[in-house]
Amino acid sequence: MPKIDLNCDMGESFGNYKLGDDEKMLDYVTSANIACGFHAGDPTVMAHTVKMAAEKGVAVGAHPSYPDLQGFGRRKMAMTPAEIEALVLYQVGALAAFAQAYGVELTHVKAHGMLYNTAAVEASQARAIAKGIASYSKDLIMVCLATSPTMIEEGQKAGLKVAREAFADRGYNPDGTLVNRMQPGSVFDDPRQALEQVLKLVLKGEIVASDGSTLRLQADTVCIHGDGPAALPIAQILREQLSKEGVILCPPGR
Amino acid sequence: MPKIDLNCDMGESFGNYKLGDDEKMLDYVTSANIACGFHAGDPTVMAHTVKMAAEKGVAVGAHPSYPDLQGFGRRKMAMTPAEIEALVLYQVGALAAFAQAYGVELTHVKAHGMLYNTAAVEASQARAIAKGIASYSKDLIMVCLATSPTMIEEGQKAGLKVAREAFADRGYNPDGTLVNRMQPGSVFDDPRQALEQVLKLVLKGEIVASDGSTLRLQADTVCIHGDGPAALPIAQILREQLSKEGVILCPPGR
Amino acid sequence: MPKIDLNCDMGESFGNYKLGDDEKMLDYVTSANIACGFHAGDPTVMAHTVKMAAEKGVAVGAHPSYPDLQGFGRRKMAMTPAEIEALVLYQVGALAAFAQAYGVELTHVKAHGMLYNTAAVEASQARAIAKGIASYSKDLIMVCLATSPTMIEEGQKAGLKVAREAFADRGYNPDGTLVNRMQPGSVFDDPRQALEQVLKLVLKGEIVASDGSTLRLQADTVCIHGDGPAALPIAQILREQLSKEGVILCPPGR
Amino acid sequence: MPKIDLNCDMGESFGNYKLGDDEKMLDYVTSANIACGFHAGDPTVMAHTVKMAAEKGVAVGAHPSYPDLQGFGRRKMAMTPAEIEALVLYQVGALAAFAQAYGVELTHVKAHGMLYNTAAVEASQARAIAKGIASYSKDLIMVCLATSPTMIEEGQKAGLKVAREAFADRGYNPDGTLVNRMQPGSVFDDPRQALEQVLKLVLKGEIVASDGSTLRLQADTVCIHGDGPAALPIAQILREQLSKEGVILCPPGR
Repeated sequence: MPKIDLNCDMGESFGNYKLGDDEKMLDYVTSANIACGFHAGDPTVMAHTVKMAAEKGVAVGAHPSYPDLQGFGRRKMAMTPAEIEALVLYQVGALAAFAQAYGVELTHVKAHGMLYNTAAVEASQARAIAKGIASYSKDLIMVCLATSPTMIEEGQKAGLKVAREAFADRGYNPDGTLVNRMQPGSVFDDPRQALEQVLKLVLKGEIVASDGSTLRLQADTVCIHGDGPAALPIAQILREQLSKEGVILCPPGR
Repeated sequence: MPKIDLNCDMGESFGNYKLGDDEKMLDYVTSANIACGFHAGDPTVMAHTVKMAAEKGVAVGAHPSYPDLQGFGRRKMAMTPAEIEALVLYQVGALAAFAQAYGVELTHVKAHGMLYNTAAVEASQARAIAKGIASYSKDLIMVCLATSPTMIEEGQKAGLKVAREAFADRGYNPDGTLVNRMQPGSVFDDPRQALEQVLKLVLKGEIVASDGSTLRLQADTVCIHGDGPAALPIAQILREQLSKEGVILCPPGR
Repeated sequence: MPKIDLNCDMGESFGNYKLGDDEKMLDYVTSANIACGFHAGDPTVMAHTVKMAAEKGVAVGAHPSYPDLQGFGRRKMAMTPAEIEALVLYQVGALAAFAQAYGVELTHVKAHGMLYNTAAVEASQARAIAKGIASYSKDLIMVCLATSPTMIEEGQKAGLKVAREAFADRGYNPDGTLVNRMQPGSVFDDPRQALEQVLKLVLKGEIVASDGSTLRLQADTVCIHGDGPAALPIAQILREQLSKEGVILCPPGR
Repeated sequence: MPKIDLNCDMGESFGNYKLGDDEKMLDYVTSANIACGFHAGDPTVMAHTVKMAAEKGVAVGAHPSYPDLQGFGRRKMAMTPAEIEALVLYQVGALAAFAQAYGVELTHVKAHGMLYNTAAVEASQARAIAKGIASYSKDLIMVCLATSPTMIEEGQKAGLKVAREAFADRGYNPDGTLVNRMQPGSVFDDPRQALEQVLKLVLKGEIVASDGSTLRLQADTVCIHGDGPAALPIAQILREQLSKEGVILCPPGR
């Protein structure tokens, strides 16, 4: 039977600032990528988010980022591989501590924002992330962009299992990149459109690109953006309909 | 045979800013309390410091602090016990990740600066620190001020082993508090004075207070301040002479 | 004719985090206290907020805070008077730069959160704030808690004009302190209740305390909390009804 | 008579961390570029540094940077022109407040580190910096790399006077760029070599490049790196010998 993981970025509140509706989203997804204090999140938010995920049986992952709270980790920063490796290790350890405290295992690591985007196209950055993760534990799964052979290869070369990620709520260009957020069709606000994309992806290994052409894609995990306009309805319909279609929803690696 | 641990705060550089001569100090001490990025230290500094400590066989501990880089963790911040517990857990996890990456175990946790000072007199803060540590692992040793029954008790109530800390290079008042840094005799710059104090402490369980009276004190670990005027000579003389006097130098808990 | 200023804390978004509906609130208030990056706000947010206030003719003030983004400036930090003075001066200058760029004058300074609360009861902190402001310009108005003679006196001793502040949307205890937020009646959610309180304050110099007793109070400015449950309706009703009752709404000092 | 400004980056300590010997350097230079808290410096350090510069009659300038304390402003950050403009304005205002408090005028602004380097090659960044400065005051001088026509032009187009900067203690490539710090001859440790370079520059408008060729260069200000190995001796010899050679030492714009 086909299976897929539904993941969502979480724990992105900070101090007095609230972001996302993590509590509800955790009812639908199977894995959570939890901010580690560098682009979002603080120790109190992390404790709360990991606790909720643990209680709801959602797999806990670290979501490390460039150190850029103001830019929410979405701005490129010129950091050396050694700096990247150290900051990934730092954030993985910090998040793992909360997992340990709440009696669950850290299952995966997904780089955030521009760190992820950069790793998808620069082998040296992907390698640094992979080394940071692997130096903590080779049992961790590295979430990689399904359309980036570079990132996948670097994760595997570091001895890690990888989970190939696609997006439920974003349109794809024919070359496998995401449609720019400035263009129409970039972000889905109709949950059925997301469902259709994910079903085709899981059952056939295909995505219909923005020009109508078919893209071959193998994915292990599907991301729902928690801050999207229809995040909860999308999560809900995926949760409900995928099982009906015989797809097993489970965290990566299981 | 009597035994004692020599500890020193380390890894307090940050980015472009250098502080202390950790490399040399690591030749003399038996345990290192390593800054975790909140009052000092950054992921790159932490990686470097843990690596050096691991290579020299010095026990690695976390040195968590209030989140106050500008104040170097020396300013009181009004944080709730839940906030304290979370930030201790965060920092312990971050430091533990580097220990794991370099193949050593995290042995202990010593709160830094004003967080430590506050815990020595406020049970609620000591309890929050202890809970943060214990939620990570009950195998960790909590370093407590030897003259603070409150702190020691809270560590033990949380199920932790404690290491009672005294100071090699600081004068004591008759009531067991440290002589204020503004007063003469507060900081020793003569290594032999530090040696004398530590020897009496280890062999007889006594310290001669600033007024000449004798103070009874049980200590498991002795702190040398890395930024003191005679830090290295003090560390060196303690390392060399204590063994000659039949004192075993070893990390806490061994 | 009686007159009063309606003020509101603003510009408290930060990077990706949004807080408050400043644009609408600026249609009703006569002065804005704008965050300066220490508890909230960043340069981009400050530029945007000052620009909007300038366009709508709302008086621009600085809202300096302890350096504590995570705690939103609501946690006490033990800082020396010299540190307070310097950080107030820094934040005042930063905000004044945006005022200058958008062609308006900085009219006032109101300390934020715990810095304000501390200054209301500790003369040394109030003095440090006042000195920081006065060292920038003695033409600036220092907003002081109307029920704190200490704060008012320190502002005046530094050579500043002061604006005495009361609260539109908070209940008062008989001794002039605010009813604790944990207790019923602490925060008004009925705009008419706020209107009634402000009218009595402006026209009679009186406030009805939580026990029904009458409190004498002189105020020059009335604060509406932008994050309160009924912030906009309160601002709107005050704006509309006060003028009808013959009260002139204008910034402090005019 | 020929004239030149000697400038140095200053106020780069932060909290407990000390950097540079500003007090001595201020005896030799004619202008100081003072850190504004984003790559270094904090309000207390800024107050102290501006006070010293004011007392010694050294011209006070702002030294704004990317927001990157850990990277000391030396890492490229992808920020939009609007973000750059706002952060320059913020830092200029903050520093200007201290100048105002100590009774001196802010004379100039020099972007720091990677912000400066980027502006030297990217017109959009240079323009954003220039706009940030000009929106504060068109009386401010923008310090520009003497070999960057782009940066100079953007400063002038924004209505600012510019001061063209050369380096006393760095070797030049034949194309006008600086010799890479990894190569021999990149940083001068012989004060006489620096003196020779500056003399030729001021008197003849020439620099001898690393390959012996002659480079034409017009400069208004010469930078001495405060953290160089021979910073103080270089500053001293320049101060003493330039006047003897009939060169007037004075801040830019006088």
